[in-house]
Amino acid sequence: MPLIVQKYGGTSVGDLQRIKNVAQRVIRTKKEGNQVVVVVSAMAGETDKLIRMAQEITPTPDERELDVLISTGEQVSIALLAIALKSMGCDAKSYLGFQIKIATDSAFGKARITGIESEKIFEDLKEGRVVVVAGFQGVDEEGNITTLGRGGSDTTAVAIAAALKADVCEIYTDVDGIYTTDPNIYSKARKLSKISYDEMLEMASLGAKVLQIRSVEFAKKYNVPIHVRSSFNDQPGTIVCEEEEEMERVVVSGVTYNKNEAKIEVMRVPDVPGVAAKLFKPIAEANIVVDMIIQTSSADKGYADVAFTVPKPDFPKALQIVKETIKEIGGKEVLSDENIAKVSIVGVGMRSHSNIASQMFSALAKEGINIQMISTSEIKISCIIDSKYTELAVRALHDAFELDKPTVTEER
Amino acid sequence: MPLIVQKYGGTSVGDLQRIKNVAQRVIRTKKEGNQVVVVVSAMAGETDKLIRMAQEITPTPDERELDVLISTGEQVSIALLAIALKSMGCDAKSYLGFQIKIATDSAFGKARITGIESEKIFEDLKEGRVVVVAGFQGVDEEGNITTLGRGGSDTTAVAIAAALKADVCEIYTDVDGIYTTDPNIYSKARKLSKISYDEMLEMASLGAKVLQIRSVEFAKKYNVPIHVRSSFNDQPGTIVCEEEEEMERVVVSGVTYNKNEAKIEVMRVPDVPGVAAKLFKPIAEANIVVDMIIQTSSADKGYADVAFTVPKPDFPKALQIVKETIKEIGGKEVLSDENIAKVSIVGVGMRSHSNIASQMFSALAKEGINIQMISTSEIKISCIIDSKYTELAVRALHDAFELDKPTVTEER
Repeated sequence: MPLIVQKYGGTSVGDLQRIKNVAQRVIRTKKEGNQVVVVVSAMAGETDKLIRMAQEITPTPDERELDVLISTGEQVSIALLAIALKSMGCDAKSYLGFQIKIATDSAFGKARITGIESEKIFEDLKEGRVVVVAGFQGVDEEGNITTLGRGGSDTTAVAIAAALKADVCEIYTDVDGIYTTDPNIYSKARKLSKISYDEMLEMASLGAKVLQIRSVEFAKKYNVPIHVRSSFNDQPGTIVCEEEEEMERVVVSGVTYNKNEAKIEVMRVPDVPGVAAKLFKPIAEANIVVDMIIQTSSADKGYADVAFTVPKPDFPKALQIVKETIKEIGGKEVLSDENIAKVSIVGVGMRSHSNIASQMFSALAKEGINIQMISTSEIKISCIIDSKYTELAVRALHDAFELDKPTVTEER
Repeated sequence: MPLIVQKYGGTSVGDLQRIKNVAQRVIRTKKEGNQVVVVVSAMAGETDKLIRMAQEITPTPDERELDVLISTGEQVSIALLAIALKSMGCDAKSYLGFQIKIATDSAFGKARITGIESEKIFEDLKEGRVVVVAGFQGVDEEGNITTLGRGGSDTTAVAIAAALKADVCEIYTDVDGIYTTDPNIYSKARKLSKISYDEMLEMASLGAKVLQIRSVEFAKKYNVPIHVRSSFNDQPGTIVCEEEEEMERVVVSGVTYNKNEAKIEVMRVPDVPGVAAKLFKPIAEANIVVDMIIQTSSADKGYADVAFTVPKPDFPKALQIVKETIKEIGGKEVLSDENIAKVSIVGVGMRSHSNIASQMFSALAKEGINIQMISTSEIKISCIIDSKYTELAVRALHDAFELDKPTVTEER
């Protein structure tokens, strides 16, 4: 019998009627001849409400206790869903993280799953029960409650699907799949029927918010197919899966943007070995993640210019650190710019197609958009531009790579 | 160093400011040179809110899942209190039922505590931490979450005090102690400074709602002194403890009443062995607890009249069962009355004083109150009367036994 793990997000269980709707969908899936494990998030708004309560007491609540607090949201959801299922005549049982040993490290608020005990779940499934699991939470070696960070329920679902070797992990959300770009920015955005793990990872980390990055990493590692779809209709969504040959025929799968970074430029630092290390070490020590880094020769010989981007919330701190650092290592001045955006194109087909970069640059140039920084990986190219051109750039790239047209595979 | 277990009820942690106040009181207790373990209830109204949600889905929610749901209320409280304590510079750690193995049976919604692991708590206390424990919840042998029933946090506190051999278990509530009678009914009601476990058990089961009965049984069994006091002031409250010699000098400690019972009378049943068993067996099987039972000879020879009381919510069902039963065992008619009240006097001194009953009957007679049923135990006498006379009876008995006057012990 096929085994399906379904995950329902906060809006899908946002009120009691929606919880009943979820119960009905679960029962339908079971009646279609599947074993079903359901992972649920907290009801929409609950986690934020709990965090606000803690922050009303103190702006910096203890991290262990904050996890005790916010993990209650999912506990309420699993109980209500199990109650709904049983009231509809479907045998069901809910489990919290500690009850099926969703083992994690002890990084409160951003813990990583290290293992799941599947015995109890298999027993229940064998008895014909639907198993309802609390997303977002786990338990560390000492029995402390941990949480997995924003979107952590996605990772719970994928981890459970991996542990149970489920046939598919369905992620139900308020959008109906992964799009070629943000439909709010460009009406020609098209829903993808399939996307590879690697592409999804680049899309997610570049700013698309549908899936938690870690859940995709997990799915890739254990080869769990993810089906991202809407809980408000029955349309198929987007399958995130291993790369298939036919995917390579599509050069660019999506255009993403990210307005949440800021740029720092250090002009005229001595171009000697070890200077970059000296510049970035204190930033790393402050737990600031640097994204793009570009080093170029300065107009002055023997000197270099270094530019890099950091998340906007970390920008003031990073700037201060850099200003301190160049007193030591030398450097003429520090420039910065918060009005930047990163636009990117992503596609596994890039590996086998040349000339994609120049097509991208031409498309931007044609709209008079200046490129400030460029970075590339095997399957993506990102450009930093003035943030006011973001939407224009996204639409231009979407057109240039004809993303509105269905691929050969999809036409079949 | 003295070890104090403090329990704060729902109104004492009813909002964030009150939680901060509790934290301050805990810190003060610690600074006075005590080790402190705190047990908290859910914030006032939370448990009811959760139950309402479940009942909106179905009038009969699954009991296991209901416990998963309603145990979140205490989880929120312990996290917020621990966050408050830590933000005030007091090291603290919260524990859920499963984390310190508050072991219970599997009677969801009314589970009984069978054991507590005290190691972790002692370790934390040794490190100078305040330990914050979720009341009302435990975990059964299979790791299911259980709850202890209304007022269950009292029992959690007493059970922990017993396990840790604490010096005292302080129960903070919205009243400032145990009174000779309900102050809302009689302004002359006086706060008792001390009361024995047995008296408290009779008072609680007779209708005083300050402590969960099971917590008093637990305290008696393990000889844990309970100090019932207000969380809104610093006045000493009432100590519930082992019977002391001086307590016996006081004949009557309190007057209680209970309007939540109804009376059923079965007239003229055959007076043969086994007839009472036949009458009450089906009632017991319906899980209805019968309180007072009186059997008298009927005016007709060879027949008896049987009268008994049941809780009002069970009254319609009990009446129906009895009507069915007498078809089988015989009986002339079934009378019933919902407008009754039970008034009782309680006191360990009764054991060594005669004539208390007749004093009670006289006091009621003087007010023209007719007694319908009487039942007695070693330390209490209860009378069933017309409910409209409840307040009058309570005041008359309070006056008759001079409960407004402080006892010799208290005057010292």
